[in-house]
Amino acid sequence: MISPFAIVETRLVGDDVEVGEFAVIRAGAQIGNGVRIHPHAVIEAGVVLGEGVEVFPGAYIGKEPKGAGQLARPVQYERKVLIGAGTSIGPHAIIYYDVEIGEGTLIGDGASIREQVKVGSRCVISRYVTLNYNTSVGDRTKIMDLTHITGNSTIEDGVFISIHVSTVNDNALGREGYAAAKIRGPIVRSEAVIGAGAVLLPGVVIGQRATVAAGAVVTKDVAAGATVMGVPARVKD
Amino acid sequence: MISPFAIVETRLVGDDVEVGEFAVIRAGAQIGNGVRIHPHAVIEAGVVLGEGVEVFPGAYIGKEPKGAGQLARPVQYERKVLIGAGTSIGPHAIIYYDVEIGEGTLIGDGASIREQVKVGSRCVISRYVTLNYNTSVGDRTKIMDLTHITGNSTIEDGVFISIHVSTVNDNALGREGYAAAKIRGPIVRSEAVIGAGAVLLPGVVIGQRATVAAGAVVTKDVAAGATVMGVPARVKD
Amino acid sequence: MISPFAIVETRLVGDDVEVGEFAVIRAGAQIGNGVRIHPHAVIEAGVVLGEGVEVFPGAYIGKEPKGAGQLARPVQYERKVLIGAGTSIGPHAIIYYDVEIGEGTLIGDGASIREQVKVGSRCVISRYVTLNYNTSVGDRTKIMDLTHITGNSTIEDGVFISIHVSTVNDNALGREGYAAAKIRGPIVRSEAVIGAGAVLLPGVVIGQRATVAAGAVVTKDVAAGATVMGVPARVKD
Repeated sequence: MISPFAIVETRLVGDDVEVGEFAVIRAGAQIGNGVRIHPHAVIEAGVVLGEGVEVFPGAYIGKEPKGAGQLARPVQYERKVLIGAGTSIGPHAIIYYDVEIGEGTLIGDGASIREQVKVGSRCVISRYVTLNYNTSVGDRTKIMDLTHITGNSTIEDGVFISIHVSTVNDNALGREGYAAAKIRGPIVRSEAVIGAGAVLLPGVVIGQRATVAAGAVVTKDVAAGATVMGVPARVKD
Repeated sequence: MISPFAIVETRLVGDDVEVGEFAVIRAGAQIGNGVRIHPHAVIEAGVVLGEGVEVFPGAYIGKEPKGAGQLARPVQYERKVLIGAGTSIGPHAIIYYDVEIGEGTLIGDGASIREQVKVGSRCVISRYVTLNYNTSVGDRTKIMDLTHITGNSTIEDGVFISIHVSTVNDNALGREGYAAAKIRGPIVRSEAVIGAGAVLLPGVVIGQRATVAAGAVVTKDVAAGATVMGVPARVKD
Repeated sequence: MISPFAIVETRLVGDDVEVGEFAVIRAGAQIGNGVRIHPHAVIEAGVVLGEGVEVFPGAYIGKEPKGAGQLARPVQYERKVLIGAGTSIGPHAIIYYDVEIGEGTLIGDGASIREQVKVGSRCVISRYVTLNYNTSVGDRTKIMDLTHITGNSTIEDGVFISIHVSTVNDNALGREGYAAAKIRGPIVRSEAVIGAGAVLLPGVVIGQRATVAAGAVVTKDVAAGATVMGVPARVKD
């Protein structure tokens, strides 16, 4: 049922939808059949929730990106969000505009996903993970708590990225402003595994089924199937 | 006083209780004497708040765990949460079902505590700490900002765990699915100290009053009273 | 416009203000011209929002600090918060009492800023950054996602601090209680750059335009313009 204490401006609401108290759903949002929206969630115009999506308390879907000053990347985005059937959006998670998420994916508590990001199906994007702009995540990939994926990254299918993993895209560390051609995040090929607290430097390629050990600082490409460890990371003997 | 703009479905409300605007308290929750609930908090059925508990805005107590696909651990839990007298639950903190927290403990902003977890009395679980399932934390233990405690961990009394500490429980890093016998978090004995950014690998035992230096990657057990540092961690000369 | 579903207790509201549904603004808060407050934000008494400030859903401005037991620092603060013109406060961000933030600064999703902190103008304090008590951040400084700045720190102008950076202020790691003279955070001089996942130990001074590489553990001062790397950090050859 739809709580009489919710604000539902849209008419595009499917069957068997539940909306909790004090949730806010703007005109133009589309709510599929069987969707469950908990109290205090905010769903902006242009958001499409597929069948059976669950949105936990305080989640915010459809945030406008804000520019971060003169040295920052110009913000570009479309005012739409697509959330696939059966996907769960955790409490206080924040999904910016221009994001597409597949089916059966779990977005954890407070995870924050910026504009121009595509996440596949049957993924886990765990608690307080932050995904930056213009990044793609394949299917069946897990990114664990408190990890950050930088802008302009590619994470393929079946990847496992552990907790507290750092990825960066800018060797100049902000000194030279934003020049898109120089700002490259990592590419993590399918079935690769990245250990807890590892750091991936700009533009490194982690090959298919490669393993990066916990705490490693990866400064150059890792071959498919290889295991690297240490600071800086070296191939394991 | 109880705001007329709050939803209070339960009848089990003690004396001198304050409930802020737009808070939601479900039927069957128990609210002790002198409890203070700020706006936008959500308290589900089966939650018991002891005397003088304070719940800050947006906190969510009584979340149902969601499974994370076929390779994940089966989710088991009881629909109850016990919060001891005088404990404070920070803004946007998320407490899952089947959690017990002692008295006089401070749960920080956005801290997230999963099912089958017990936290003792006079602890600090600081901002954005994430505690995973089936884990126990003793009394007087402090876990600082942005640290992650993995599933199947034991943290004893009087432990200090600094910021950004990574703990993991699965050498296979998700490759072999969930087999409970192989998934072991660390055991941190009483009065041990873990420095900032340290990584504790699966199943390591950190002895009583041992010290792990900042940035260390601990791959094997640390004796009581010993100090280890480096990547991988070695005993300090 | 001000939603009829918001609670606006203050009379100190400027022109062209927007307040979303279920927001709560306490008596004595001051809301400048052109301010935009989204749904579910909570603004306590004593908070002053400058012209054109935007406050996203669920942000909480004016939190009372809570003590963390007998070994903790005594909590001292004034019941005021000043937010400069054009500054943006992200969704679920938490600003404690006794904080001052300059103009045109961006506070990211869920960032948490404790009492006795001053942040300058045109800064970025990104997602889930936690700033501890009695710390100052200059102008044009960027602190990226999931970084923690410890209490008693000084971060000057034009600094870039990457993601997952750990800073600590207590060599005794909590063992000796709180003695203010011994609790010293780092000093990061102007235009310095700190790489992802770096750890800065208590009281270190990072010189002007110095660079700390990703993953470095900095145990002693770094000269102006120098570059350090490794565990422990050494000057690059």
